[in-house]
Amino acid sequence: MSTLRLCVLMAATLLASVAIAAPRKVIIDQDALGPGGPNLQPILMLLQAEDVEVLGITVVSGDGWRDEEVAHTLRLLEISGRTDIPVVPGAVMPLVNSPARTKAWERTYGKLYYKGAWTEKFGDEGSVKRAPPHPDNPYLIPPSPAGAPTTKALDESAATFLIRKVREFPGQITIIAAGPLTNLALASRLDPKFAGLAKELVFMGGSFNPVPAQNHFAAEYVNSPRREFNMRFDPEAASIVLREPWARVMQIPVDPTTRTFFKPEYYEQIGRGRAAFRDYVKAYGESFPMWDELAVGVWLDPSLVTRSATLAVDIETSFTAGYGDTLSWPVGEGPGLGERAVLVVQEVDVARFEKMTVELLSRPSRRR
Amino acid sequence: MSTLRLCVLMAATLLASVAIAAPRKVIIDQDALGPGGPNLQPILMLLQAEDVEVLGITVVSGDGWRDEEVAHTLRLLEISGRTDIPVVPGAVMPLVNSPARTKAWERTYGKLYYKGAWTEKFGDEGSVKRAPPHPDNPYLIPPSPAGAPTTKALDESAATFLIRKVREFPGQITIIAAGPLTNLALASRLDPKFAGLAKELVFMGGSFNPVPAQNHFAAEYVNSPRREFNMRFDPEAASIVLREPWARVMQIPVDPTTRTFFKPEYYEQIGRGRAAFRDYVKAYGESFPMWDELAVGVWLDPSLVTRSATLAVDIETSFTAGYGDTLSWPVGEGPGLGERAVLVVQEVDVARFEKMTVELLSRPSRRR
Repeated sequence: MSTLRLCVLMAATLLASVAIAAPRKVIIDQDALGPGGPNLQPILMLLQAEDVEVLGITVVSGDGWRDEEVAHTLRLLEISGRTDIPVVPGAVMPLVNSPARTKAWERTYGKLYYKGAWTEKFGDEGSVKRAPPHPDNPYLIPPSPAGAPTTKALDESAATFLIRKVREFPGQITIIAAGPLTNLALASRLDPKFAGLAKELVFMGGSFNPVPAQNHFAAEYVNSPRREFNMRFDPEAASIVLREPWARVMQIPVDPTTRTFFKPEYYEQIGRGRAAFRDYVKAYGESFPMWDELAVGVWLDPSLVTRSATLAVDIETSFTAGYGDTLSWPVGEGPGLGERAVLVVQEVDVARFEKMTVELLSRPSRRR
Repeated sequence: MSTLRLCVLMAATLLASVAIAAPRKVIIDQDALGPGGPNLQPILMLLQAEDVEVLGITVVSGDGWRDEEVAHTLRLLEISGRTDIPVVPGAVMPLVNSPARTKAWERTYGKLYYKGAWTEKFGDEGSVKRAPPHPDNPYLIPPSPAGAPTTKALDESAATFLIRKVREFPGQITIIAAGPLTNLALASRLDPKFAGLAKELVFMGGSFNPVPAQNHFAAEYVNSPRREFNMRFDPEAASIVLREPWARVMQIPVDPTTRTFFKPEYYEQIGRGRAAFRDYVKAYGESFPMWDELAVGVWLDPSLVTRSATLAVDIETSFTAGYGDTLSWPVGEGPGLGERAVLVVQEVDVARFEKMTVELLSRPSRRR
């Protein structure tokens, strides 16, 4: 072998190893407000993880209205010293669904257990520290225990930001969607190539056969095992997104999350490393199932998954009792109307997942 | 106390004890054909039970077409020496549903796992001894391994028979419905007083949160936890029946039945007492979950129930993905459209139930 050829080979090997070590690019699409306050741990997990590059946080109405969520997200990034991460406001309203439509549905089909931003009155538990709901005032930003942010969101729509980024890094970006799928549906219809240009979609939502008895948050599944909030808030968007040509879709439904719980002692452990973050989350409600954290967790470490199935999945869009319910079939036995194979996470190693989450959140900030 | 008063008291006590000892009157409304052959054990359980008077067996299309089911039922009664029990033919077709409608549904919403009389081709397992399906020929009666009956069914419709009987014994008759609810819906609309004149309704059907992994018969619940055959075959009838003014409704959904199984050794045990019956059931498929047997079992001995819930229950009638699905709410949180409180059996003492079933079926015939 000539010296020249050897040099070329070494350079190629070096470049390949650099490529392998390049951080995994991710955009998190979030409603960023849990039933008990800001649900920002999943965002922080990604910011703290090694070898992960967060390109942005796109926000969508869901657990709360978009603007209140954007304010919470900006403030979290200030507290975390990560104001380098762009926050991008997305859809205020779902595609078809609305508070009025929800009231009409409830008159015909019975009370919904949880309505996110459209909740008229929070229950007695878990949510006492969240500002009172304001279902009729989308743009109100109530005072936050963490203070108002001084930084600003990007002056761009989440949908166009998402399209711009997947075109900039084709085949490289994972989109982790942890709220209603309105932003992704808009991006899909704005640009038919959008989904195909992403590396993969990982989303938290839907419900298959959850065990209702795990904790009181799972009590709703006694009577509606196929209804989950993210999908139910914008069923049309979910159905659109699930029929797009993603290279790969991984779904984290509520099923495995019913066994997870953000225990008070976790906050104490985190506080030893990151007192500011502990104080921040403790200022709100605490001790909730780790819904969105789990979606981030299994993406960071797929070996956490102990049981999964590949199923054809869609979301019901007929305005009936099943509106927003998860539909599924063995692959090949669906109606063939565009439903696609999805890797559905059914069980995880809960102890290892919770340990990993606490460890990630306790680390010092790692601004690039 | 005077002698007269003592005599009156003794007479009253005697009458009361006679009243207590009077047999419990029951009519069983059945499709009488399981996926693997005639599912006649539940009928036999009632015939063999102490202190139970079976007033009749009304038959409805479901697992099979009505006429084939009627023939099986008549033949069973001949083999059992119980031709004193009237067999009454009921509805051939559900109220609205039909084979053509089912095909149209499958084109839009995916394949149904099981279609009873409308099955085009049986699967490889369990059903090999049942005559091939004849979905397009309602009145065909294929040859039976047990032979053709020589006795005849009553020349009356199941619905009018049911009405006649509850008027004859007001407040005294339990109706155990183990198939689609078409006959009971017809009786309810023929006579608005019908349901209120029965003592109670006990029905096998519906699905809430079954554990899919129990056995391969439960595999369908992975993708459709709220769909159960009896309700799905005639959703409109089920919704009608569930809104009627029954004094009491007990529902045995598939949930507790997924843990039961008619094991081959049970047939051997039964054969020691009743060789003819063992040979009869062994001539068909065997080893199925004890769906209808459980409905009969918990009525005979309510102490078998180890967990139950009172829920508002209805059946979805919109012609969508959820057609025929079980709808439920905490009592008082439904839409108030007529859904009613139902005692839903969730778990039972399986070992004791299976022992009781085998013991009942092994007894000598007890013709009155």
